[in-house]
Amino acid sequence: MLVPYRDVREYLKELERLNLLIRVARRVNKDTEIGPLVRWQFQGLNEDQRKGWLFENVTDSRGRNFDAKVAVSIVGASRRVYAAALGVETPEEVEKKWEEAISHPIEPVVVDRSKAPVKEVLMKGDDLRKTGGVDELPVPVVNPGTDPAAYFSAPIWITRDPETGVYNAGTYRSQVKAPDRLGLHISSGHDGRVHWFKARERGEPLPGVLIVSPDPALSLCSVSKLDQSEYVISGALNGRPLELVKAETVDMLIPATAEIAIEGMIRTDILEMEGPFGEFSGHAGPADYKFIFDITAITHRRSPIFQVFISEMPPSESSMIRKFGREGPLRHELAAKVPSFHGLNIAEEGGCEEIAIISLRKPKPGEAWQALHTAAAFNRKMFKWIIAVDDDININDFFSILWAISFRVQPHRDVEIQRGKNCGLDPSSAPGEASYKERDFPDGQGGSRLLIDATLKWGFPPVALPTKDLMLHAKEMWEELGLPKLTPRSPWYGYELGFWPKEWAEAAKLAMEGRYLETGEKYRRMRTTSKYIETGQIEPTMD
Amino acid sequence: MLVPYRDVREYLKELERLNLLIRVARRVNKDTEIGPLVRWQFQGLNEDQRKGWLFENVTDSRGRNFDAKVAVSIVGASRRVYAAALGVETPEEVEKKWEEAISHPIEPVVVDRSKAPVKEVLMKGDDLRKTGGVDELPVPVVNPGTDPAAYFSAPIWITRDPETGVYNAGTYRSQVKAPDRLGLHISSGHDGRVHWFKARERGEPLPGVLIVSPDPALSLCSVSKLDQSEYVISGALNGRPLELVKAETVDMLIPATAEIAIEGMIRTDILEMEGPFGEFSGHAGPADYKFIFDITAITHRRSPIFQVFISEMPPSESSMIRKFGREGPLRHELAAKVPSFHGLNIAEEGGCEEIAIISLRKPKPGEAWQALHTAAAFNRKMFKWIIAVDDDININDFFSILWAISFRVQPHRDVEIQRGKNCGLDPSSAPGEASYKERDFPDGQGGSRLLIDATLKWGFPPVALPTKDLMLHAKEMWEELGLPKLTPRSPWYGYELGFWPKEWAEAAKLAMEGRYLETGEKYRRMRTTSKYIETGQIEPTMD
Repeated sequence: MLVPYRDVREYLKELERLNLLIRVARRVNKDTEIGPLVRWQFQGLNEDQRKGWLFENVTDSRGRNFDAKVAVSIVGASRRVYAAALGVETPEEVEKKWEEAISHPIEPVVVDRSKAPVKEVLMKGDDLRKTGGVDELPVPVVNPGTDPAAYFSAPIWITRDPETGVYNAGTYRSQVKAPDRLGLHISSGHDGRVHWFKARERGEPLPGVLIVSPDPALSLCSVSKLDQSEYVISGALNGRPLELVKAETVDMLIPATAEIAIEGMIRTDILEMEGPFGEFSGHAGPADYKFIFDITAITHRRSPIFQVFISEMPPSESSMIRKFGREGPLRHELAAKVPSFHGLNIAEEGGCEEIAIISLRKPKPGEAWQALHTAAAFNRKMFKWIIAVDDDININDFFSILWAISFRVQPHRDVEIQRGKNCGLDPSSAPGEASYKERDFPDGQGGSRLLIDATLKWGFPPVALPTKDLMLHAKEMWEELGLPKLTPRSPWYGYELGFWPKEWAEAAKLAMEGRYLETGEKYRRMRTTSKYIETGQIEPTMD
Repeated sequence: MLVPYRDVREYLKELERLNLLIRVARRVNKDTEIGPLVRWQFQGLNEDQRKGWLFENVTDSRGRNFDAKVAVSIVGASRRVYAAALGVETPEEVEKKWEEAISHPIEPVVVDRSKAPVKEVLMKGDDLRKTGGVDELPVPVVNPGTDPAAYFSAPIWITRDPETGVYNAGTYRSQVKAPDRLGLHISSGHDGRVHWFKARERGEPLPGVLIVSPDPALSLCSVSKLDQSEYVISGALNGRPLELVKAETVDMLIPATAEIAIEGMIRTDILEMEGPFGEFSGHAGPADYKFIFDITAITHRRSPIFQVFISEMPPSESSMIRKFGREGPLRHELAAKVPSFHGLNIAEEGGCEEIAIISLRKPKPGEAWQALHTAAAFNRKMFKWIIAVDDDININDFFSILWAISFRVQPHRDVEIQRGKNCGLDPSSAPGEASYKERDFPDGQGGSRLLIDATLKWGFPPVALPTKDLMLHAKEMWEELGLPKLTPRSPWYGYELGFWPKEWAEAAKLAMEGRYLETGEKYRRMRTTSKYIETGQIEPTMD
C-alpha cells in the first residue's frame, strides 16, 4: 500500500494497482448517464464486485466538453475499496484504524500557498460570472428523472465554530443554482448547522469552503459523527498530518492537496427554496427553504478530478462510508461503557441511520440494556431499531440476526419503545406537505426507537447441528465427492449454549456409536401417568 | 413433468432427470455421516445449488449393512426441488397449486391389498422382536453429537379423530427406543394431539400408523396447517386421488404406495421420557415425558427407500416445506379477509414459525391492521414478528423489508405487542429445567407477538434512483463496456409513491436537459427570512 496518500491522485493509482478502478474512456453524459451507470453496480452486483470509476471523457446535455475528469464511488464502493482508502487490507483492520485514529489524532500542518496544488487555478470576483463559475465544473445529475438539478454529492464543507474556532468538515449536499450561488442543506444534529446558528446569533454570515476531492481519509471522515475535528482525525486515519493552506477570500485554513475549493459565505439572514433531492432514506426529501451559499472564489488544480458519491438508496457508497464512519465513534463509546461489548453493525439496510446491531460476549445481567441505551443516546437522530445479540450471532448476516430475534426474544419482556427521536429526513414522520419543524419533531414528542434485547436470558440447549468434528469429516467427504465449493455460514456446527445436562451428553455419545436402544431401555424405566401433561407431577406407573 | 407421481420411486426418477438428485454409491454411516454431509448444502451453498440425495450403500456404527436406501432432502431441498415434488416449474406455480388444492380437494380411493406395494413385506407379533423390528430400518442419527438416538425425521403420522373419523397426517418426530417401541412428540396446536386427548377421554389408546416415503405431495402436506384432511389435499396437490389400503392391525386406511408403514397404538395412559432432539428453532428441545407408540405391525416394500428430512436449524428442508405448506392456507385466509392482500412470506429466518411478512397492494386505512391481526389469529403458536409492507417491497428480500421498516414506521405509532401466544418449543419462553406447561404458557399469559405496520401512511416522495428508461439505457452501456453480469435487485429504478408535485417533476425534466440553472433562477425568487426555521412562516425578503 502507498498510504499515506498525499492526494486523491496518488490514491487512484493505488486503486488501479489493486484492480479496483474502472476507467471509462468513452464519452459519457454527466446529466443522464454517469449516475445510472455506476448505480447499477449497487443494484445489480454483489458488494465484492463493486469498484471505483474514473470517467475521462465527460460531456453534458448542453453538449459541453469538460477538462475535468469525474471520479465516482472511489472511496466507498465496497469494503475492499474503503479499506484501500485507509491503506489497510480487511474490514477488521478498518475497525482498528478508526479506533486508533480516535485515540491518537494528528494535528494538521500549514503549508505555503506555493506548495498547495489546490491553488493552481484561481477565479474570483467578476471572473466567476464571466466564466460560468461553478457551472464550469462537471457536476452530475445523480438521479436523473427525479433530481431537480445537478448537485455536489461528495462536498466536504469546511466551517469553523464562531466561538471556539474549531474546524468541522461535513458532507452537506449542494444544489448548483447559478455560477456564483449554491443551495445547501444541513439538517439538524450536524455541526455545520450549529456553526450557522452561532453565526446568526452574531448577526453575521457563516464563512465556508466547499472542498471537492481531498485525500480519501478526509472524505471518509466527513460523514462520521465525531466529537473531534475532522482535520485531526483524518490526519490520523491517513497516517500523516493534513496539509492546510490559507483560503483566498475567507479567513480559513483549507486542505492544500484537494482538487477544488469553492469559497464563500453561507447567508444567515435569508433562506431560499432548495431540492428536492434523494436522501439516505432512499426517498427524495422535501423541497424547502434552505441555506444559500454566495461564492466569492474558486481555486482548483489544473484538469481537476471531480469526485462524486453514489448516495441515497442503500446500499450505496454513502451508506458504506457512513457505516464505518459512524461505527468507529459508537464502538469507542460502547467499549468504554459496556464490559461485554463485542461488535457493532450499523446496517446499510437502514441507510446506516436506522438500524444498529450490537453483539455482546457473555453479558452480565443489565449489560444488554446498558448497550441498547448507550446506542440510543449516541445521536438524537439515529437508530429506529437497536438489537443486542450474543457473540455467537453473525451481526453482518441478517439470517443469523433474525434467527436470534425469533428464538431469544419475547416482545412483551424484551422490547422497549423510546420517544424523542429527531426524525430529520425520515419520511415516515409527517406528510411531505408538512413544515420542516413538523417533520423533524412531530406532535411535540418526536419520533421513536424500538430496542430489542435478543441476548440469551438463561442457558439454552445446544444448537441443533452435528458437532464440529463430524461436520469437518463430512466436509472432507463432500470434497472427495467433487461437490460444489462450500462457503460455511454461521452457525455451521452444533455448540453448547449453557444448558446441556450430563445425561443428554451421554445419550448423544451412545447414539453416535449406534447404541441408542440402550437409551430407549433406560427411558423405559422413566415413565409417568399421562396426567403429567396437566399437573407437571411425575407419578409412578405400573408399567 | 411426470406428475402425478404414483409413488416416491417415480418421483426420484423425475428428480434425477431434472439434475436435482445426487446419488452416493460409496458406503456411508447413517449414525455419523449422512446427517452432516447433507447438512453442508444448507449451511454452505446457495439455495439454488441444493439437491435431493440418494444413499445407495448404507451402513451404521454397528457395522450393519442395510438393504434399504436412504433418501434425504428429496422434497424440500430448495424451491426448485419443492416445485418438482408438485410437478410445477416455479415458486409462483407452487402458490397457485396450493391455492387450487385447498379450493378443490380430491377424495382418496381405496385399493385392494394386492395392489398396494406397501404390503410386499409384513412383520407382526413376535416377528417384530425376533427380527429387530423397527431397528432393521436405516433410521439415521440426524445431528450426531447432540441427538440422543436415531429418529424418524420424515414420519407421516396417520391418526383419525375419534369423534369424526377424519384422517390427519402430521410430521411428529419419533425416537427409536426398541424393536417394537417408538417415542413421539406431538406439541400443542397439532391435530394429532387433539386426537390423542379425545382418545384419552374415552379411556382408549389412539391407533396410529407411521408412514415413511409416501408420494411427495403427502410429505409436503403433513407439515402444513390445514383445516381439511391431508388425504384430500395431497390428492389435489398431486393431481390424482390418493390410493388407500386397509392396515393390518388397526382399523385405518393408509397410503398404499408408501415405502413403509408402521402400525400400532399411541398409549394415552402413560408417558415416557423422550428426547432431547433438535427443533425448528435450531436448538435442541427439552427432554421430557412424552407419548409412546407400541408397534403392532410393520409392512414395507422390498428394498424400501427410507426418507429423511433435514430439519431443525433453518434454513433446512423442513423450513422450506413448512414455508409453502403454511403459506398456502394463510394466503387463502388473507385473500378472503383483506381486499388489498398481495403476497406472503413465512420466513425461513424464523424457522417458518416466528416471522411472517405480508404485502398489500394500495391498502385502504385499517387493512394493514386487518392483515396483521388475521395472521396473528392464524395459529396460536405461530408468528412472533408479523410485518405488513406495500407491494413495492420485495417480501423475499430482507434488504427490502428492512428498508421499509426503517423508513415507513414510527414504532410508537405502528407497533402493537400481543400477549397470549403459545410458546411451544420456543426456548426463550422459560429455562430448560421448566416443565412443559411452564414453557408453553409462561406466567399464565403466555408469550407474545409484535406486529408492525410498515405500509405507507401517506404519499411519499419518489424513490431516489434514476428513472427506469435511463437505468435501462445505462444497462446497455454497462453491457457494451463488458462489465460483470447484473442481477437487478428491487428497487432498481426510481418510481413514484404518491407525493410528487408538478413543479418537482418539471424541474427534474429541466435537469436532465442540463437546464438546472433555470431552476436556480426560479428558486432565487423563492426566499424567506431565516426566522422560517423557528416559525415555519414564509416572510418576504429584500433580496
